[in-house]
Amino acid sequence: MALANRNLVTIDDLSNGEIESLFSLADDMHNAMEKQINLCRGKIMASLFFEPSTRTKLSFEAAMHRLGGSVISVVDVKATSLAKGESIADMARVVGSYADIIVVRHPWEGAARVIADYAGVPVINAGDGGHEHPTQTLCDLYALKKERRTLKGLRIALWGDLKHGRTVHSLTYALARFGAIIHFRSGPGLELPEYVKRKLETEYTGRLERYENISNIIKDSRFPIDAIYITPGSPHQLANIPDVSMQIELDKGVEALYVTRLQMERLSGKADEGLKKEEYPVVDKKLLKGKEFAETLVLHPLPRVDELARDIDADPRSMYFKQAALGVPVRMALIALLLGAKKAPAVEEDRSFIRKTEYTPCHYVYGIKCPNRNCVSHYEKESIKPEFTIVCRRPLILRCVYCEHEVSPPFIASSEWHEGKLINKQYHSASSHWARKIKAENLIVFSSEKDAEVRGFKPSHYAKKRYRISKKEVEL
Amino acid sequence: MALANRNLVTIDDLSNGEIESLFSLADDMHNAMEKQINLCRGKIMASLFFEPSTRTKLSFEAAMHRLGGSVISVVDVKATSLAKGESIADMARVVGSYADIIVVRHPWEGAARVIADYAGVPVINAGDGGHEHPTQTLCDLYALKKERRTLKGLRIALWGDLKHGRTVHSLTYALARFGAIIHFRSGPGLELPEYVKRKLETEYTGRLERYENISNIIKDSRFPIDAIYITPGSPHQLANIPDVSMQIELDKGVEALYVTRLQMERLSGKADEGLKKEEYPVVDKKLLKGKEFAETLVLHPLPRVDELARDIDADPRSMYFKQAALGVPVRMALIALLLGAKKAPAVEEDRSFIRKTEYTPCHYVYGIKCPNRNCVSHYEKESIKPEFTIVCRRPLILRCVYCEHEVSPPFIASSEWHEGKLINKQYHSASSHWARKIKAENLIVFSSEKDAEVRGFKPSHYAKKRYRISKKEVEL
Amino acid sequence: MALANRNLVTIDDLSNGEIESLFSLADDMHNAMEKQINLCRGKIMASLFFEPSTRTKLSFEAAMHRLGGSVISVVDVKATSLAKGESIADMARVVGSYADIIVVRHPWEGAARVIADYAGVPVINAGDGGHEHPTQTLCDLYALKKERRTLKGLRIALWGDLKHGRTVHSLTYALARFGAIIHFRSGPGLELPEYVKRKLETEYTGRLERYENISNIIKDSRFPIDAIYITPGSPHQLANIPDVSMQIELDKGVEALYVTRLQMERLSGKADEGLKKEEYPVVDKKLLKGKEFAETLVLHPLPRVDELARDIDADPRSMYFKQAALGVPVRMALIALLLGAKKAPAVEEDRSFIRKTEYTPCHYVYGIKCPNRNCVSHYEKESIKPEFTIVCRRPLILRCVYCEHEVSPPFIASSEWHEGKLINKQYHSASSHWARKIKAENLIVFSSEKDAEVRGFKPSHYAKKRYRISKKEVEL
Repeated sequence: MALANRNLVTIDDLSNGEIESLFSLADDMHNAMEKQINLCRGKIMASLFFEPSTRTKLSFEAAMHRLGGSVISVVDVKATSLAKGESIADMARVVGSYADIIVVRHPWEGAARVIADYAGVPVINAGDGGHEHPTQTLCDLYALKKERRTLKGLRIALWGDLKHGRTVHSLTYALARFGAIIHFRSGPGLELPEYVKRKLETEYTGRLERYENISNIIKDSRFPIDAIYITPGSPHQLANIPDVSMQIELDKGVEALYVTRLQMERLSGKADEGLKKEEYPVVDKKLLKGKEFAETLVLHPLPRVDELARDIDADPRSMYFKQAALGVPVRMALIALLLGAKKAPAVEEDRSFIRKTEYTPCHYVYGIKCPNRNCVSHYEKESIKPEFTIVCRRPLILRCVYCEHEVSPPFIASSEWHEGKLINKQYHSASSHWARKIKAENLIVFSSEKDAEVRGFKPSHYAKKRYRISKKEVEL
Repeated sequence: MALANRNLVTIDDLSNGEIESLFSLADDMHNAMEKQINLCRGKIMASLFFEPSTRTKLSFEAAMHRLGGSVISVVDVKATSLAKGESIADMARVVGSYADIIVVRHPWEGAARVIADYAGVPVINAGDGGHEHPTQTLCDLYALKKERRTLKGLRIALWGDLKHGRTVHSLTYALARFGAIIHFRSGPGLELPEYVKRKLETEYTGRLERYENISNIIKDSRFPIDAIYITPGSPHQLANIPDVSMQIELDKGVEALYVTRLQMERLSGKADEGLKKEEYPVVDKKLLKGKEFAETLVLHPLPRVDELARDIDADPRSMYFKQAALGVPVRMALIALLLGAKKAPAVEEDRSFIRKTEYTPCHYVYGIKCPNRNCVSHYEKESIKPEFTIVCRRPLILRCVYCEHEVSPPFIASSEWHEGKLINKQYHSASSHWARKIKAENLIVFSSEKDAEVRGFKPSHYAKKRYRISKKEVEL
Repeated sequence: MALANRNLVTIDDLSNGEIESLFSLADDMHNAMEKQINLCRGKIMASLFFEPSTRTKLSFEAAMHRLGGSVISVVDVKATSLAKGESIADMARVVGSYADIIVVRHPWEGAARVIADYAGVPVINAGDGGHEHPTQTLCDLYALKKERRTLKGLRIALWGDLKHGRTVHSLTYALARFGAIIHFRSGPGLELPEYVKRKLETEYTGRLERYENISNIIKDSRFPIDAIYITPGSPHQLANIPDVSMQIELDKGVEALYVTRLQMERLSGKADEGLKKEEYPVVDKKLLKGKEFAETLVLHPLPRVDELARDIDADPRSMYFKQAALGVPVRMALIALLLGAKKAPAVEEDRSFIRKTEYTPCHYVYGIKCPNRNCVSHYEKESIKPEFTIVCRRPLILRCVYCEHEVSPPFIASSEWHEGKLINKQYHSASSHWARKIKAENLIVFSSEKDAEVRGFKPSHYAKKRYRISKKEVEL
């Protein structure tokens, strides 16, 4: 388990075993916080916060100081050279030559990936727009594990703003990988993004029951349910006898409730126009009296606004302040590991919940841009170009390597026919059978017919027709 | 003298003996600044500045570094999670789980009290709105003591903006407690607030001669005089033969002049409308030529604007830069004591200037809000509710526990009659004799008749009448 | 070479020998970065940035931490007491009593000089408006020296915004002092300021060939050439047989190219109105294919915008990221020397490129203000008054001691005739022969006739006439 010199950009950068191992080190740190003072002496952490933060920033800096290291920091985009028009790639290179490790929060999704690509020293993503916040997830998992010992089979509900909450996205993947059973209960209009659902369905071995398929059996849920993610090893084998066991499952309540605030600062005009803030779910004393919450731990990444009433602060089920405090030993362990100041103890790893999926990169991309307006690829045009992997052949879906949003290009061609044989330069509809036939490594994608034609491609017989892909034909 | 784990929210959180003891430690620090580097090694100070500051912030951070400790900091409310709507109580809890000690400056009066209530680690108030700034007072007292050896009987004039200056308020209480003779000479319209005067009159054993009572003998004062505070042990016993000795006293001049700038940022539209800035008193070379200033030390908490002319910077009486420099050893001593890294040496304490006053809390408060619009109780409604102590029975005066501003509720009742005996649920005018008759622990206060009536109280015979309390009847 | 307790405000504060010596120490630091951790333990650096900065600020702070010291910092003028109207002189005094060394960046030209005058501890100028940025120059020289071994005779082109770039100004003086041959190739309308040219011509022993004199031989230059600075010891003795050898010289290309960005934030409305941004020179792959750049190192102080194309980032001639990285050891060496933690090794100094010029201060200045609107003398009127040295007698030119901009007062008189002999109180035109005749120490200057007359001076025979000074008469 060599973690030295690696990055933590998404939670998937760490294997389950590495996470367990990190937690074991966090335990050591937690038990002797003031004895780690010589571990990273002489090392420098650059703390780059281009978005507001109190807790995450202070938590990282406290962690570094507890390890005896130093911190250099930049706060607020307005007070920095970025105001002079500098690219984050350049900034990463330069700061990487000053510091031994970089912690970065940035409003652009995928920014931490770009910084990691250029820095030359380990980079930790402390939040990149609405994308990921992997160290928050580590704290969440660590807090859960400390109370519940194992995450396997743990019934946990994620509540609130599942659409914009980066902490929710990172946490979802991690819980799936550790075999938890996840209830997604969103505020109205704040459902889990499609690309997150798809990632759950394609990359981990559990099964996502989408609400539209189970709505008949979920009647009395307090809040809209998006979906339930069921681990394959779960005792009732819900996947096999869905209706009955699902009801049984729901009746059992949840062991943990992960509450999130409405991410006001990420609401985008149009897409969130109809949002009814007054319908946002509130967790309070009254709610927690429900039988299904008798043994439920309440977590929250904080800061809270109104979605978590103060009347439960003293309730023994309320974990959120403890959860925040655990951020320091977790981050101490992470920093010490990435700096190579500590070796991660070997841990036996349960890899049963990860499907080994290596997506093929799409090499030939013409005119396709990431559909996420907040993706770093729209801002850093000088230093990076749009890059995608092919996550589904039929329907054809590409995933942005920076922010993981998805796009479906309408036209395709093959690069095999490209070389030399001009007569075969034909393009097809992406929903025709060619989408499956062309080898992934040869796939050319176009954003429009014009885009194909200016590159010398002619429409094939399969270019103009519109296909509907039946559910049966879907291939991942 | 156990100071470890305590807070410093107002200057009254430290006894005279504790202050003397802290100064003795500050002397040690001052004499060997660079030898303290291992004293707080491994400790973390959170420096939270939600208002502009150069000197106080840097002085605290320098002090912590000189002690070998680390600093994590947040500057400016816009760059923090508070922008996301978080309460300061939540912030205090979380930061208290990261750091070993918290230093906070905040624009709301009483904010430091709330933070101290929730943090779980020692909290130092580095200025809460116009309320208090106790470490500035420690520096002021320390600078005075270093030059004049004792504060007892020291004649000191406080000049300038006595209304908005939090440093003035903290300093006033401390000087009174140490037995100094204080001349309050304010800029026009910038008199000492009424609640500060009352605190002086009720809580320390000296005597406050208000200007209206002594105006006949003060003719040639350069600037308006609000009042003179006279320590009881002062040699001339001014209190007994006021007119003659007062004149003698004034003729003797002052041994120290504490100059303050006009607190522009705290001027509130209406209340300060008629302010004539051009009449603000200026201390310069010419003024200091006056006989009464021959031996006068000039202090200023800085920053200065125009009220302190540069032409006296080189004058040996000018103490303000030295005073600023002494802030570091004083804060080193304070931090070391609160962190328990040092024990305060035992000091014989002169408690003769403190009247032991334990004000009773008012338990039943209906509809009464703190009259200070800038009080933390108006902002943190979720986490705190208005709380008051009874500082005067007739006229009835309550003091806000957060910002110390005062309010006089118009109607009262007794909670004795409340239990079971509905027929006796009567309310009275607060200026009737009932204000004195009802036991403090039973006192119910209402903001209006309606407020009383909706709670089922009927007007008593003493409810509707308007009483005037003669001077003789005033009871503290 | 005692550098302890000195300031670095302009690059001329260090002799060539001191710079060489500092570089030798920087080499030691660079070779053992992590072994310096006890060198400045217990020392505090105040990092005061009143203008945006990422790299310079982080680089200084990283340097201090690598030396084991601590950092206290203030960022952004809005978050500080300066917002309360405090003078920088006061701030300097106070911060100087907290910290052992101060690093300051400020938008006003000459601000670092004022801070150094008041702080009482070593002050390092990290950029004062468009004036100087001496530590950037140290990094530039160090990077050049590491690659080229000597600066003597090095052919280097300074490209881009030579008007506003403070890094360019500091670097120019240093290169001249070390005997480099400098090509000034500016963007359109962005020529080297006149006062910088004059300083080159008067203070170092090389020769500045202004473009107007050599335009006939420079035909194919890609960008406007302002001037070429030729060291006297350069092999071809260009100065003697200019036309031929100049062409030979130009044909040889340059060994280094120092590229700068357009300093958008320093453009001032009127003066830069006609600026054609689209004509700003761009350094890219195509340009570097030119024969004259075959062996050319490319440097840039960063941040870059568009003037330096990313397509050369991987080119072995591109030095700019390495140059940035070298900022840390250079600043470590500087801090250690100024704090007296290290002694500078003795180095044999080549002083042949410095003309020893000690300009006489002009003691009697009436009504003359620095013409640079951004000069600190216009902002800090309370703590400083305009001061000038006499850098040229005919035409009469004074140089502001703060920002080094120049002014030519129209009228003069002598203070010899001032004392007692009222009848001789006469003033003259500054372009009359009196400008040379009056002893420098007696020179009185006036901004207008009225200014002279209100002080009791009458016009002499030489007051009203307008003189033209022929080129031959110019005397430096």
